[in-house]
Amino acid sequence: MDEAPATAKHGRSERRARGRTDRALDRQMPWRQPVNSYPLLDILSADAVEAIHTASLDILERIGISVLSDSVRELCRRHDAEIMPDGVRVRFDRAMLMAAIATAPPAFTVRARNPARSLRIGDRHLAFATVSGPPNCSDAAGGRRGGTMRDYEKFLRLAQMFNVVHTIGGYPVEPLEVPVPVRHLQAMSSMVRLTDKVPRVYCHTPQRARDALEIIRIAAGVPAEDLDKQTITYAHINTNSPLQLDKAMVEGIALMAKLNQATVITPFTLAGAMAPVTLIGAIAQQNAEALAGIAVSQFSRPGAPVVYGAFTTNVNMKSGAPAFGTPEYAKAALISGQLARRYRLPFRSSNINTANAPDAQSAYEGMMSTWSAITGGVNLLHHAAGWLEGGLCASFEKFVMDAEMLQMFASFLQPETVDAESLGLDAIEEVGPGGHFFASPHTLARYETAFYAPLLSDWRTYGNWQAAGGGDIVQRAAGIVEQAVAAYEEPALEPARAEELAAFVARRTEAGGAPVN
Amino acid sequence: MDEAPATAKHGRSERRARGRTDRALDRQMPWRQPVNSYPLLDILSADAVEAIHTASLDILERIGISVLSDSVRELCRRHDAEIMPDGVRVRFDRAMLMAAIATAPPAFTVRARNPARSLRIGDRHLAFATVSGPPNCSDAAGGRRGGTMRDYEKFLRLAQMFNVVHTIGGYPVEPLEVPVPVRHLQAMSSMVRLTDKVPRVYCHTPQRARDALEIIRIAAGVPAEDLDKQTITYAHINTNSPLQLDKAMVEGIALMAKLNQATVITPFTLAGAMAPVTLIGAIAQQNAEALAGIAVSQFSRPGAPVVYGAFTTNVNMKSGAPAFGTPEYAKAALISGQLARRYRLPFRSSNINTANAPDAQSAYEGMMSTWSAITGGVNLLHHAAGWLEGGLCASFEKFVMDAEMLQMFASFLQPETVDAESLGLDAIEEVGPGGHFFASPHTLARYETAFYAPLLSDWRTYGNWQAAGGGDIVQRAAGIVEQAVAAYEEPALEPARAEELAAFVARRTEAGGAPVN
Repeated sequence: MDEAPATAKHGRSERRARGRTDRALDRQMPWRQPVNSYPLLDILSADAVEAIHTASLDILERIGISVLSDSVRELCRRHDAEIMPDGVRVRFDRAMLMAAIATAPPAFTVRARNPARSLRIGDRHLAFATVSGPPNCSDAAGGRRGGTMRDYEKFLRLAQMFNVVHTIGGYPVEPLEVPVPVRHLQAMSSMVRLTDKVPRVYCHTPQRARDALEIIRIAAGVPAEDLDKQTITYAHINTNSPLQLDKAMVEGIALMAKLNQATVITPFTLAGAMAPVTLIGAIAQQNAEALAGIAVSQFSRPGAPVVYGAFTTNVNMKSGAPAFGTPEYAKAALISGQLARRYRLPFRSSNINTANAPDAQSAYEGMMSTWSAITGGVNLLHHAAGWLEGGLCASFEKFVMDAEMLQMFASFLQPETVDAESLGLDAIEEVGPGGHFFASPHTLARYETAFYAPLLSDWRTYGNWQAAGGGDIVQRAAGIVEQAVAAYEEPALEPARAEELAAFVARRTEAGGAPVN
Repeated sequence: MDEAPATAKHGRSERRARGRTDRALDRQMPWRQPVNSYPLLDILSADAVEAIHTASLDILERIGISVLSDSVRELCRRHDAEIMPDGVRVRFDRAMLMAAIATAPPAFTVRARNPARSLRIGDRHLAFATVSGPPNCSDAAGGRRGGTMRDYEKFLRLAQMFNVVHTIGGYPVEPLEVPVPVRHLQAMSSMVRLTDKVPRVYCHTPQRARDALEIIRIAAGVPAEDLDKQTITYAHINTNSPLQLDKAMVEGIALMAKLNQATVITPFTLAGAMAPVTLIGAIAQQNAEALAGIAVSQFSRPGAPVVYGAFTTNVNMKSGAPAFGTPEYAKAALISGQLARRYRLPFRSSNINTANAPDAQSAYEGMMSTWSAITGGVNLLHHAAGWLEGGLCASFEKFVMDAEMLQMFASFLQPETVDAESLGLDAIEEVGPGGHFFASPHTLARYETAFYAPLLSDWRTYGNWQAAGGGDIVQRAAGIVEQAVAAYEEPALEPARAEELAAFVARRTEAGGAPVN
């Protein structure tokens, strides 16, 4: 016999299921960083992890890595790294390198301007970040288009409204109409005004990074001289694979670390393009590049907060373009988690896909990447909400779909307690064979809050769904976007800080912003 | 900096990406049962698992379970179970029960009529089964409708064509127009003619089960007197929760076991309805019901093949109807896997969702259930392809989406080897900082087969996708359905068996089939 859900599916009235999108945000889970207390999934043996580790040290000791910054090369030299005859490549002795890695903290706190939104990065805590970086955005009503400041701010409002989104991972979409020299000023000041969650800094140029840090510092109310006493933001740092740390990025690491701000060192090691075609080779290269970047952070300031980032995936063999959420990506994420644990460092992974629309593909690829991140012990899940098209587009509806998936993981990670109450033997005995539990006191005492309640998923019967118009999930998500934006309230910012912020942005804008390099 | 996929995404010509749906099946993975060599995810401590185990034994020893069959109660009595004064409820001494469970094999082989399609159930092997049981089916062209024999046979052809579908889990959709007394005769003879994969038996009535077994036996070319010498099929057995084994089901267990055919004992323990509202209570009840059914199989024939099935999920709190692919479902699947391992039994779980359409929800709920099944050590993944609407509808397009997801898991489960070749240090050294690996001999030697190639997922750039018409994933899946059906070839069946089969079905049909109970 099959599970015969037909009978049970009509068990009760569905009256309360009507008008669900009207109240989606009322049903959302409270703000809380999930904690993963489950065992993590080690898909490689400890010996195999050690072999990758050793290969990375071989790479850094024998081949070296190009450090495209005079000042950072000098910093490395002062820490006994060897500058090669080309004057650019740097080799690291393995003992010296591991001694530097060992000074990085296993976990740290990032203070938000609203202390209730501060984040613990590391231990078994998880933080979910918005998508960042797409030049395009899309929604059901407006289609796909280049990003604008209006879209950018709409994403920020969404991010503020969803409790399961813990940090602003960067620009959810680029506000393309804003000239580059002043874009960071406008974008960052919007970010710290429209949200009170931990913001992220870009290190595209040292000036832009300094401006962004200043904006975040002012909004957080931290005196300039105290900035290095608390971590209030983080930067994502990509290496320029293979085996290059470019000037802006590596100087960004040094600057951020010096100020005690966090960096997330994330090589984009694309197997078959910028890294070996073998997944293990790509991971060995990722590991070498990540360790070099982490070492730079520790050279700059021992103990500076730093995260082990992983972004190894494979190319699409038909086009040479990257593919995301693939089986290879899932394996790489799990192995990267093992490496991060090998170094006792917080671990960053992502929720990503290659789909062109917020469809089933975007969901199953996203789930491949997110399950592997979660079971791999991720601490900072980047691009957790809104990513589409391999990162070329931010989707408003996908943002809501991802919020649902993230809440499902947050619920999944709440451990079950096994005790007399949860075993419920008295209820089982009382109901007895052939009875039902609807009216049992054991049920009634727990019914309202027993289970995860979805934001977006439609659990109505087909008949009720059709009777209500049969709207698709993208339409439902679009409705929740509009509901969230309508309910949005700007978080209070002390008037003195707001004034200082406005004055800073005005002054820097008048000065021409930060010139394009 | 973000991962800047824009640059890489246009790295190479996408000419070969055109006409992709024309050749989807040419790209499919070869027939092979995946083997899960990764560690499994124990989300409960061993002590907590033991507490659930003990609670189940308490239930069976103190409360008992109703066995609604005179012959099976007598079988239990002969094995020292206690019949309670109501004449229906049976209590099992824990030592006696565990002794019976211990005679069940940890793994067994089910021989298909095509020996190349035989399945290993247990150890670390996985087998993926079609959806079974929906009264309705749907496709993009025809919409949603009651199932017909035409739809039924179309699903069988699909199941035969996709290598990643290993067994026919039952009727993918009910052929509703065929009168019930003869439906099993027509449906089972279609199943064994149109596919050469392991078929499944229904035990709705003893006569139907015997007819189905006879059809499978004839197609497999097994002499009647040898049937109990090899396992050629299996039945899914649901308990009638709470704590009831109904007549047809429990006599089905005894019959199948006596003939050395496999049973999959799967309580449908719906937390908050037919089981306690607490997940742990529902699992304790599931475990008690499963152990009782497994014991009956072993009373009937010690060593008979049997699978520990799990189907605990929660109700939708708004309607009382079941919800599938929920966070609670994922936890229950993982805990059930731990229990199956506690008893050294093969483990059955499912790929299920509550969605009304083959949309993102169907994918993320399906992924919640399938990831938890895989990391929970599933051996038989039921409803692996085609399930929609909580099991009330079989979707042709979802079948193809699921085939893609199943292939992704099959690829994910191929372990990585860490050695000099896979580490590729020579290639990394040769390419050096700032180079690329496209032309590296290390790449060229492996490029064509390095990565998973999708069946359905669209990895084209947005521009190329739009230029080609921007078709959605449901349309692409529908195209693959038609392609598979067009390419379908009926697997050869020896003429003597085909004749015997036709004669049997004609004789039984003339005799009126199996009357409805």
